Amino acid sequence: MNVDEIVNGIFSKNRRALARAITYVENELPGSKEILKAIHSRTGRAHVIGLTGFPGVGKSTIMSKLTEEFRKRGKMVGIVAVDPGSPFTGGALLGDRLRMEGFDANKQLWVDPGVFFRSMSSRGRAGGLAAKTGDVVKILDAYGFDIIFVETVGAGQGEVDIVKVADTVVVILMPEVGDDIQLSKAGILEIADIFVVNKADLEGVEKTVRWLRSMVMMSEEVVQTLSTLTHADEARVLSGEIFKVSNHWVPPIHTTIADRGVGISELADSIEKHYEYQRKSGGLLKRRSSRAKIELEEIILGEIKNLIKKKFNYTEILKEIVENKKDPYTVAEEIISKLCYER
Amino acid sequence: MNVDEIVNGIFSKNRRALARAITYVENELPGSKEILKAIHSRTGRAHVIGLTGFPGVGKSTIMSKLTEEFRKRGKMVGIVAVDPGSPFTGGALLGDRLRMEGFDANKQLWVDPGVFFRSMSSRGRAGGLAAKTGDVVKILDAYGFDIIFVETVGAGQGEVDIVKVADTVVVILMPEVGDDIQLSKAGILEIADIFVVNKADLEGVEKTVRWLRSMVMMSEEVVQTLSTLTHADEARVLSGEIFKVSNHWVPPIHTTIADRGVGISELADSIEKHYEYQRKSGGLLKRRSSRAKIELEEIILGEIKNLIKKKFNYTEILKEIVENKKDPYTVAEEIISKLCYER
Repeated sequence: MNVDEIVNGIFSKNRRALARAITYVENELPGSKEILKAIHSRTGRAHVIGLTGFPGVGKSTIMSKLTEEFRKRGKMVGIVAVDPGSPFTGGALLGDRLRMEGFDANKQLWVDPGVFFRSMSSRGRAGGLAAKTGDVVKILDAYGFDIIFVETVGAGQGEVDIVKVADTVVVILMPEVGDDIQLSKAGILEIADIFVVNKADLEGVEKTVRWLRSMVMMSEEVVQTLSTLTHADEARVLSGEIFKVSNHWVPPIHTTIADRGVGISELADSIEKHYEYQRKSGGLLKRRSSRAKIELEEIILGEIKNLIKKKFNYTEILKEIVENKKDPYTVAEEIISKLCYER
Repeated sequence: MNVDEIVNGIFSKNRRALARAITYVENELPGSKEILKAIHSRTGRAHVIGLTGFPGVGKSTIMSKLTEEFRKRGKMVGIVAVDPGSPFTGGALLGDRLRMEGFDANKQLWVDPGVFFRSMSSRGRAGGLAAKTGDVVKILDAYGFDIIFVETVGAGQGEVDIVKVADTVVVILMPEVGDDIQLSKAGILEIADIFVVNKADLEGVEKTVRWLRSMVMMSEEVVQTLSTLTHADEARVLSGEIFKVSNHWVPPIHTTIADRGVGISELADSIEKHYEYQRKSGGLLKRRSSRAKIELEEIILGEIKNLIKKKFNYTEILKEIVENKKDPYTVAEEIISKLCYER
């Protein structure tokens, strides 16, 4: 299969071409750029949903149940799961996948042809993670998936970058098992469009929901918005009802028991409502611009890094720095002046 | 205080000049580059120790006790604490600091003048975190601190970058409270020179130590090394004794009860032994080269980003991408060809 065949294959919903294209992009094979260039004009139609949460909260189960739900609603669902991919976690994550319904662990795919699953490793890929994931999302988008899930544990800047520019960001927690875990979620809470407290049959669920609600209510935008409301409306917001006020989205807080399917359909409704809201409010374009910006910068900086490696003898340069002969700022200036037009 | 006064102040151990220099560097004030250039030749003398571990394991307590211990051994100790710095965690981390002995929370400094503490926020600083932290370390180094601790929670690539290029990396855990937490440490385990299981009075400490030991023993280098040993020597390694075999460092596993000071002096011994080993084995130069490389690349890429922002109209460019008029790869090529000499 050459590049043209792959591109045409994607456009005609050929599953082998799809898998091939992703392999090209993941491994940066010659031709991968051409594929991405060729499909770009067909992208932008899918609803990209970021799912993030700490290991153990039940992300995979929720994703699997949401996939079933959206399939019932007639959508084709693509999934990109970003795994930390350490030798220490590989087993456990595979275990997670094994528990997903409809997932054939031997073949690493879903039985339903309306679902496509791909796992990507974030290991050692600080720089290029968002770009690579973005590329895979684009291929799925061009192929015609209506819904694309991007699942990450949300640790690490690369992962946060990916998920925060999804059209809809779903942050999943579970009833709190200690402050530490909540703390570690900190950076993630701020990017949520929708909260899920899974395993709602465990003790402490009310406490976690209350805590989340107070977090939501503390955010500056929400405080401003609430001040414009009547008491009755404020109560409706505070009760956690999905509610759009003064053109501002207040993240709803869902409780689910994913392995029994409880709360999944309501969550799917929320996700669709958020997409609708984003389209109307202009938020969608804004986020897609951010996504394009992160991707563009990663591509440019990656190319620049390659140029530097090609043109300069790093070992020699670093030796001079470590031996205190030159400072890194002077070295950086020298490299840039040799690399770029006028500073 | 102008730049010259600050630089001379650092060289003559003037505390105000030190604090000033750090403020310059942190806020990228005009003159900060000049300061860093001027002090570069005086750096490289301090032992940089990375301390990392999940929130709640007792990092701050261990750091505080190690600081006391190294002070007793006649060393001057500088501390750079990298905080996630989210509005959600600020309070909790301050709480941690409050519990450190010898720390004056009101003045945010240690009472002992042989100790200097500085907290840095990693918030929203994916790109420049390692460079900035490296700069602060250099200032402390040039000032004359013998030991410099860099403390991070080890989440996020920026933080991992910082800590993995410390001369000695200490990874702190506690008796396991669930697989999740151990899992989340995954990326961190591989960079440890020394392991600490703190809160060793809690249940499950043996299990955690055993688990860590099996992790250490599974690493490829160690497996190779062990195969060259007699059974008696192998037993000594497996028993967790600090042990250098075939010129390879096998990370020792310490247990501590930091708030009672148990195990701290042994940990300090290990840290000193590792430094000694690194100096003799050439590992020190290697890591400092890696540190210089990460710093250099961050400086260069930061400058390139600024150049791009100055020369191109991002809003327009991103609009074209999002509206499918141009793909990001083509745009990146255009930008680079306008920015750099020959591709």
